[in-house]
Amino acid sequence: MKIAVIGGVAAGTSAAARARRVNPEAEIILFEKDKNISYAGCGLPYYISGVTPERSQLIMNTPDEFREKYEVKVNISHEVTAIHPEEKFIEYEDLVHDRMGREKYDKLIIATGARPLTPPIPGIKLERVLPLRTIQDGDRIKRLAGHQNVKKAVIVGGGYIGLEMAEAFDKLGMEISLIEMQENVMPLVNAELADKIESHLQDKGVKLYTEEAVKEFIGNGFVSEVVTDKDRRIQADLVLFAIGVRPVSELAAQAGIELGVRNAIRVNHRMETNLRDVYACGDCVQSINLVSGKPVWVPLGSTANKQGRVAGTNAAGGSGSHFGILATSITKVFDLTIATTGIKEEEAEEAGFDPVSVTVNVPNHAGYYPGFKNFVLRGIFDRNSGRLLGAEALGKSGVNKRIDVLASAIYSELTADDLFQLDLSYAPPYSTPKDAVTILGMVAGKKI
Amino acid sequence: MKIAVIGGVAAGTSAAARARRVNPEAEIILFEKDKNISYAGCGLPYYISGVTPERSQLIMNTPDEFREKYEVKVNISHEVTAIHPEEKFIEYEDLVHDRMGREKYDKLIIATGARPLTPPIPGIKLERVLPLRTIQDGDRIKRLAGHQNVKKAVIVGGGYIGLEMAEAFDKLGMEISLIEMQENVMPLVNAELADKIESHLQDKGVKLYTEEAVKEFIGNGFVSEVVTDKDRRIQADLVLFAIGVRPVSELAAQAGIELGVRNAIRVNHRMETNLRDVYACGDCVQSINLVSGKPVWVPLGSTANKQGRVAGTNAAGGSGSHFGILATSITKVFDLTIATTGIKEEEAEEAGFDPVSVTVNVPNHAGYYPGFKNFVLRGIFDRNSGRLLGAEALGKSGVNKRIDVLASAIYSELTADDLFQLDLSYAPPYSTPKDAVTILGMVAGKKI
Repeated sequence: MKIAVIGGVAAGTSAAARARRVNPEAEIILFEKDKNISYAGCGLPYYISGVTPERSQLIMNTPDEFREKYEVKVNISHEVTAIHPEEKFIEYEDLVHDRMGREKYDKLIIATGARPLTPPIPGIKLERVLPLRTIQDGDRIKRLAGHQNVKKAVIVGGGYIGLEMAEAFDKLGMEISLIEMQENVMPLVNAELADKIESHLQDKGVKLYTEEAVKEFIGNGFVSEVVTDKDRRIQADLVLFAIGVRPVSELAAQAGIELGVRNAIRVNHRMETNLRDVYACGDCVQSINLVSGKPVWVPLGSTANKQGRVAGTNAAGGSGSHFGILATSITKVFDLTIATTGIKEEEAEEAGFDPVSVTVNVPNHAGYYPGFKNFVLRGIFDRNSGRLLGAEALGKSGVNKRIDVLASAIYSELTADDLFQLDLSYAPPYSTPKDAVTILGMVAGKKI
Repeated sequence: MKIAVIGGVAAGTSAAARARRVNPEAEIILFEKDKNISYAGCGLPYYISGVTPERSQLIMNTPDEFREKYEVKVNISHEVTAIHPEEKFIEYEDLVHDRMGREKYDKLIIATGARPLTPPIPGIKLERVLPLRTIQDGDRIKRLAGHQNVKKAVIVGGGYIGLEMAEAFDKLGMEISLIEMQENVMPLVNAELADKIESHLQDKGVKLYTEEAVKEFIGNGFVSEVVTDKDRRIQADLVLFAIGVRPVSELAAQAGIELGVRNAIRVNHRMETNLRDVYACGDCVQSINLVSGKPVWVPLGSTANKQGRVAGTNAAGGSGSHFGILATSITKVFDLTIATTGIKEEEAEEAGFDPVSVTVNVPNHAGYYPGFKNFVLRGIFDRNSGRLLGAEALGKSGVNKRIDVLASAIYSELTADDLFQLDLSYAPPYSTPKDAVTILGMVAGKKI
């Protein structure tokens, strides 16, 4: 039995490692077009800023370590160029030795991930206009940011990478401008909450330009200026281009694998594609939103790890499932934490619910215990059933815990009254006798 | 409509405040035998240590504030001495003016709380042998602890009050000895975890004597020595006597109200006693454990607040329920957090489950992010259904969040596989791609 895995970051390495555990006999071979595998992409902003001092801390396993630990043949700098599902082999290109090869498989796992969007904006190919996706991207930015004459950063895109990098550039002493095409940064959170993020960014000295798009990058070799569609000209020593990513699914599509939402690969709960013995997982696949029941594409490291495990289990002859997601996400932006889970009002309406939203200002812990802070908690409930459909939270403390309690509550289809009934832990350093979640349930119960 | 409330701390004031909200017309009258109402008993260790600098921070409402805010007649220093359920009136004693009185009621809410156990140990009435329950108890300890010649503290009882006070006495520069009759401190947590608490206490300089009971307190006016059943003699300038509490239910029992577990008042989910128009709530009532379905008595501030709200709602003509508890609790002991929820192995067996326990060492957040620490997470699952029945956690960081996620999971009857499926938030400062809860679910799934 030979299992081939395409892609070696989160989902691919999870799949390969798990396949080895489930099947000690299988031959497992992993192809990665880059030089690194098994690293923590989410840690790059912290490595760049120096919060995480050593590059090696981001690397869970070098190719050699992974090979040894899991008895997996690891081919780095190998790009898979074609899948032949009938004959069950793949073609690859060895990028170092510039030669082609073929590899047969019994089971194939596609974990090709996602890549940054790079629209054809004039000047986007100038040097120092950089994405942040791979560890090489991180290295490149770290070599430049804050050094010598690289003091002015322009961030294009106010999603979580853009915002985490604003904090990182600030730590490196850079001047920061952030351009977001939409009305607000973090378009996934409610506008009222997004306003608070924007105030916080401005308090930290970030120059914010919302509802503004980049028209052109100007420079001579290196980028030196960013021109927006409002004809604003912003000086730039470095541009982080982070307007989003898209699934890498061309290889799969060429082999006849069905794509779904935003061209992400369509898989079932066993991570099986429409082709027999071909699995896919991670940022390249679509998922089911557990509340709306609709297919969605939400590339996140947490999901990639689980899906990789499930794909690896099933490919190796075991049995596992990943039923779907709540699109739960969390981001630290300077002193703020912003988190979201479940669905928004619009999605709720589309899915046939009658959404009611409730926003409460709630304590992280007892008011008399040091570090007391209020934070904002917002719940979206179904008026008819009282069921919690989605939640958002923002604040300096307390967000982290409550979003996970609420993600668990949404998964379990709990109602506003259930939130009141939940027996959550209480001691002064950790919460209040009526926890923030309890209060949300009480206020929602009243409103419904 | 006249609503009388007996007891003015957590449950009583919650009930009175809520009754006012539900029924703006009702006459509401509250009786409290002490001088203070509406204070945070759980904050006393922090007030004593100085972590919470001002006494006023613990007082949510003075009697005057409460009277004004909720239009409730507040009778402090009034002890209710009899309930006449047929004629619907209570008798009370005004402790200040030393006179008796009567008050009619339409609805009665009993929130008499709990009182410290004080067995007839020789010398227990010596001065400076003190309990910690009321704010007056707190005042008394604060006046003494760490001052002048009060440097040696002996704590009798290793429950959460004893342990929180060990930290408080340490902050005040006292030498601390702690005596616990049982094999381990925190008898509610697993022995393996309790061992870790004990090591931590010893690291902090606390002298620990487990499986040892107090035989006698010796002193001349003031306590000066504690003698144990192993004939150990421990010098003491101050003794905190904290071996537990029991429900204050004599008044209710005399009126014909049925008692249950450990003489706590028996109520239904509407907080109704067996007598018509008489409700009870808080530390004086028993609850249903939602996992075992059995009546239990677990006096906690979080439960008291909710039950008070439900009793107040129903007494005032509204409709509310409190279905039960998971006995979720959390304690900070120096740098450690210890938390527990749901049921233990023995309870699980009694309730007809086939318990399997799983202990994992799990990360609070990404290893490369500052403040990374592992903590211990323990889950008790039912072998047949995979259902999570109980959980415990101990560590320096990360405990707080996971115990509440697991309390929510137990409430929702989630299984080990559900824990894997939960879409919990991930970013490096908050968790790992596979969260601690996910890992617990994975390991449990394998073991079951």
